[in-house]
Amino acid sequence: MKLLSIGTVAFDALETPFGKRDRIVGGSCTYIALSASYFLNKSGIVSVVGDDFPNEMIQKLESRNIDLEGLQIKEGEKTFFWSGRYHNDMNTRDTLDTQLNVLENFDPIIPESYKNSEYVMLGNLVPAIQNQVLDRLGNKVKFTMLDTMNLWMDVAMDDLKQVIAKVDLLTINDEEARQLSGEYSLRKAAKVIMKMGPKFLIIKKGEHGALLFGEEGIFYAPALPLEDVFDPTGAGDTFAGGFIGYLASTDDTSFENMKRAVIVGSAMASFCVEKFGSERIEDLSLEEINERVAEFRKLTDFELNLALA
Amino acid sequence: MKLLSIGTVAFDALETPFGKRDRIVGGSCTYIALSASYFLNKSGIVSVVGDDFPNEMIQKLESRNIDLEGLQIKEGEKTFFWSGRYHNDMNTRDTLDTQLNVLENFDPIIPESYKNSEYVMLGNLVPAIQNQVLDRLGNKVKFTMLDTMNLWMDVAMDDLKQVIAKVDLLTINDEEARQLSGEYSLRKAAKVIMKMGPKFLIIKKGEHGALLFGEEGIFYAPALPLEDVFDPTGAGDTFAGGFIGYLASTDDTSFENMKRAVIVGSAMASFCVEKFGSERIEDLSLEEINERVAEFRKLTDFELNLALA
Repeated sequence: MKLLSIGTVAFDALETPFGKRDRIVGGSCTYIALSASYFLNKSGIVSVVGDDFPNEMIQKLESRNIDLEGLQIKEGEKTFFWSGRYHNDMNTRDTLDTQLNVLENFDPIIPESYKNSEYVMLGNLVPAIQNQVLDRLGNKVKFTMLDTMNLWMDVAMDDLKQVIAKVDLLTINDEEARQLSGEYSLRKAAKVIMKMGPKFLIIKKGEHGALLFGEEGIFYAPALPLEDVFDPTGAGDTFAGGFIGYLASTDDTSFENMKRAVIVGSAMASFCVEKFGSERIEDLSLEEINERVAEFRKLTDFELNLALA
Repeated sequence: MKLLSIGTVAFDALETPFGKRDRIVGGSCTYIALSASYFLNKSGIVSVVGDDFPNEMIQKLESRNIDLEGLQIKEGEKTFFWSGRYHNDMNTRDTLDTQLNVLENFDPIIPESYKNSEYVMLGNLVPAIQNQVLDRLGNKVKFTMLDTMNLWMDVAMDDLKQVIAKVDLLTINDEEARQLSGEYSLRKAAKVIMKMGPKFLIIKKGEHGALLFGEEGIFYAPALPLEDVFDPTGAGDTFAGGFIGYLASTDDTSFENMKRAVIVGSAMASFCVEKFGSERIEDLSLEEINERVAEFRKLTDFELNLALA
């Protein structure tokens, strides 16, 4: 398996200024796997759901060449549930309800056929489980990418720092970068965080784009200005899925190639927010993705040979 | 005269988390003229100061080939004074004191030798005076750029809308674009604002860069991530000065050339915030500017020929 992703598969109840949904499939792993699926012939996921999880979604994931051997379905148990309401600015939200259900005793079992995975995406999840997955994987792993959130900085910082020390790339948002580093300047924050372990850091800034930091320098990918952000849920996971999917498909972890991967991830995320949940990224055409990437190209492209003398 | 700039020349008292200054020269016109001076052999300003204005600064402006025939020096009066304190995030500030002084009865007299100006920069100032300047200029004007602020939207919206209707390009920040248009989405805001008159709009987003809107599309110039923003005062004016200076020097108002001008303006603004007041943009070397522009090039440059099939 080229790519293995772990994370949550969930039911979400969402409310945005544009409407609400009571129970749609969400979760970090869902978005990551769907987004990566456009770049890979096959990828595996490690996650868990209850027996209330809809067969229709299982089929949809399989139809996108996502291998579900690693998706545990627990009889008599219920799928993880999250409910949230976005504020008018769409950048902040309140969590209304969290029911861990099957996640409470999640044991991330890695199928034999996944153990030779070269690219690993640790989607947002309890850091202790992310750690466990890394311990259980063989030494075929070439590249590990980690996503996390402020909640784990508040309640499980020691575990989180352990995972951070082991991965190649960490992706978090600007506020989380400030919290993790204790630095307000993102450039200073990046220096502090990269000393914790990862060689690369991506700071996501929502409607303001994303910054990639590495030893080789800094790359700034803008976000496409959209008429409306319909529902931001899963945008970060979709970004991560597009990024790691492109990286794995090209099998090139150079800084130059990561710049391309950031653009691909940004393009995928720009689709995600156009509809509720994962709806928009379930059936994209390749033409649509090519066109969106071309829009990003146009958005920042300029020719300037300033040579003042 | 290729470029004529109007705006304030002032004393500022500033306090940032990095220190304070009690009385340094500031004002929109000062930053605009200094920034534009790196691209033009000569430019003129229309503004007013009191007899307390330091001779040293007069000489500094003249040494940068800024023509001061249009700078009125009022005997027995005092220069406009503004005092502000920045919050820790550097994106917000409190105005502590404003003393209009000579600005109270400012009559913007345009010297005969300025009347053939082709490029006009209306720096942030009472909209009624900006209007007056446009009325007093001949029909040689090719391109007019307007900067303003939320204060005038609160207290002089009718006058402001009159000026906006007459200019080619408006530059404001994201919050001001939202206030002026009543739209949260910047893409929607741009549509509304461009219906008010200007063919082009630049929305400044501080540390998140700047967006250029035109009929031809959208261009997103990121801001250079800096270790420290020492003092943001004048960054917007410095951006505007670099933009219009480059545009006037190339005498090309196409969308393609405006993209270049946005990068030049962003580069100039990135210098401005590195020191207090206008200190950093008073004596830049051409090498420094060339290097900074090259950094912007590197920051967003990527090669990606994604063609999924």
